Amino acid sequence: MKIFESVPNFSTSDENTMELIISTMEEYGAKILDVNIDRDHNRSVVTMVSDCNNIVNILFNMTKKACELIDMDKHRGLHPRIGAVDVLPIVPMMEATMKEAIDISKTLGKMIGDNLNIPVYLYANSTDSEERKRISWIRNMHFQYEELKKHINEEKYRPDFGPQEMNKWGALILGARNTLIAYNVNIDTEDVSKVNEITKKIRSGKYIKNTKALTFHVKSGKYVQISMNINDYNNAPLYDVYEFIKEESNNYGFNISGSEIIGLLPEDAVANSLGHYLKAKIGSKNILEYNILRSLWK
Amino acid sequence: MKIFESVPNFSTSDENTMELIISTMEEYGAKILDVNIDRDHNRSVVTMVSDCNNIVNILFNMTKKACELIDMDKHRGLHPRIGAVDVLPIVPMMEATMKEAIDISKTLGKMIGDNLNIPVYLYANSTDSEERKRISWIRNMHFQYEELKKHINEEKYRPDFGPQEMNKWGALILGARNTLIAYNVNIDTEDVSKVNEITKKIRSGKYIKNTKALTFHVKSGKYVQISMNINDYNNAPLYDVYEFIKEESNNYGFNISGSEIIGLLPEDAVANSLGHYLKAKIGSKNILEYNILRSLWK
Repeated sequence: MKIFESVPNFSTSDENTMELIISTMEEYGAKILDVNIDRDHNRSVVTMVSDCNNIVNILFNMTKKACELIDMDKHRGLHPRIGAVDVLPIVPMMEATMKEAIDISKTLGKMIGDNLNIPVYLYANSTDSEERKRISWIRNMHFQYEELKKHINEEKYRPDFGPQEMNKWGALILGARNTLIAYNVNIDTEDVSKVNEITKKIRSGKYIKNTKALTFHVKSGKYVQISMNINDYNNAPLYDVYEFIKEESNNYGFNISGSEIIGLLPEDAVANSLGHYLKAKIGSKNILEYNILRSLWK
Repeated sequence: MKIFESVPNFSTSDENTMELIISTMEEYGAKILDVNIDRDHNRSVVTMVSDCNNIVNILFNMTKKACELIDMDKHRGLHPRIGAVDVLPIVPMMEATMKEAIDISKTLGKMIGDNLNIPVYLYANSTDSEERKRISWIRNMHFQYEELKKHINEEKYRPDFGPQEMNKWGALILGARNTLIAYNVNIDTEDVSKVNEITKKIRSGKYIKNTKALTFHVKSGKYVQISMNINDYNNAPLYDVYEFIKEESNNYGFNISGSEIIGLLPEDAVANSLGHYLKAKIGSKNILEYNILRSLWK
C-alpha cells in the first residue's frame, strides 16, 4: 500500500481561509490528520495523507485555492515565508518509495508552474543542487517574500518550474523528503561545553548522518540537552543516535538521564530500532495496528 | 478509539462454509484481517476487528451461522475441539480496556446461551474460576466434543450460560484475553539442559509473569531456542523477557544469537519496549501510522 504524507505550510492564520483550503483537499480525497494554526507566525500547517492516485490532484487544487485566498502583500508574521503555500513537502510512507515521492513532486511542480503562474523551487531530495536542498538558501529571516520579489530576475533565483516573476501569492518550495524525527537526549550534567563537543560531532555528519543538533542548558532541570532533527532515519536510526551519545557521554563521565520524541515517529523507525536491541528482525509488517491500517485503507 | 480484535476458531476446513460465515461477519461490520484454513486440523481461524458498537452483533450472528452449517457429529481433525465455534477470544485494542472486553464477552455469552441453545464456558480474563481460565480443563487431546457430550450433565461441566446439554454444534469457549506474543530467543550453545534451566525459571512465573516457555534444540542451526507465549505483555514486556534470558545465558557463558517475533505485535508493546532502551516515554500515540489509523476508522 503506497501512502504519501504531505505537510503543507500556509502563510495565513485565518480560520475561514483554512476551512476553505481544507474542504478543497478533502473534496479531492485527502485524509486530514492534523491542522495547526499559529497566530503569532500567521502560519498554518496541515498534516494530511493520501494514496498515490489522488496526491497530485489534491495538492494542485489545494495550491490553486490557497493562491486565490492569500495575499502575500498583506501578510505579516514572525515566521519567514516566500509564498501563500510556502513549503510543500511530500513524504513517502508505508510501501511508497522516495523515488515515487520525487517523481510526484516534479509532476506536481510542473503542473503548478505551468498552470498557476507560481515560481516553484525544488528542495530536499527533489533537487540535485546542493545549495537548494535546504530551504534557507531562498527563505530565511533576512530574505523573504519581499526580497525575492526584488531579486527573482537574477539567475540565482531561476525557478525549477513556472515563471521567473512574482505575483501576490509568491513562490513555492516543493520537494520529497523523509519523515523528520525530532529527538532530544538529556545528559545528567551542567557542563555545557563538553556536551557541545558531542553535539558538534553529530553535526559534523562523520558519525551520525544528516542530523541537525543543538545544545541547550536546561537550568530548571539542571541538565544539558542535545536537541536533534534526524533527517534520514534509515541512515541515522534512533538506536544509533542514542548509543553514540551514550558512549560519548560516558567518556566524559556523564550519563543519559532520558530522551524524548517530539511529535510523530514512523512505524518502521520504531520497529527497526527495537529490533536492534532484541537482535530481531522487526518491521512494520509485524505490527497489529499497521495491518489493520492496511486492511482499512480504501 | 475502542477497537476489539477477535480470533474465532471454527471446527471446519470447508471453504464454502467459511465463505458463508465470513460474509455474515462482514455484513454486520467486521473487518477481516486474516483467514487461515487448515485441512489437517479441519479447523479455520479468522482474525477480525470491529468497533465497540458492532462487536456483539457480529459475533452473535457469526456463531448462529456457524452452528447452522457445522455438524460436530461428523467432524474429524487433529486439533482437539468441543464445538462448531470452538474458541472465541475477544481482545481489547487501542483505547479499549480489558474490562470492556470482559463485559462484551459476558453480554455475548448470555445472548448466545439464551438464544442459540449453546453451552458457553467463559475462560481467560472473563472467569473468576482458576480452573476455567485455561482451555485445557474442558478441551484437550483426551476430552473433546464426544466426551463432553457424555459428561456435560455433571456439576463440574455446568456452563456459565446456556443449557447444560449438547446439540450437534457442541459448546463454546468464550473470553477476553490480551494479545498473545509468540517470541523465540536463540542461544548460541548446544547445551540443552542448561538452557532448560532458564526456560524453567521463566515458566515458574517468579521472574517473568504469565509466560509459557519451551526449550528446543535446533540441530540444523546448532543452537538452543527458548520458545515462548507471552500472555500478558504489559506485565512481561519484551525487553524484560529478552534481558532476563540474556543475563541468565551470560551466567552460563552463553550469548543470545538472535530473537524472533512470530506473527503480530501490538503497537504499544513495541513502542514501550523501545522506550525502555532509549529511556524515553514512547507510546502508540507517537506513531504516525497509528494516528492515520485513528483518523481513518469509521
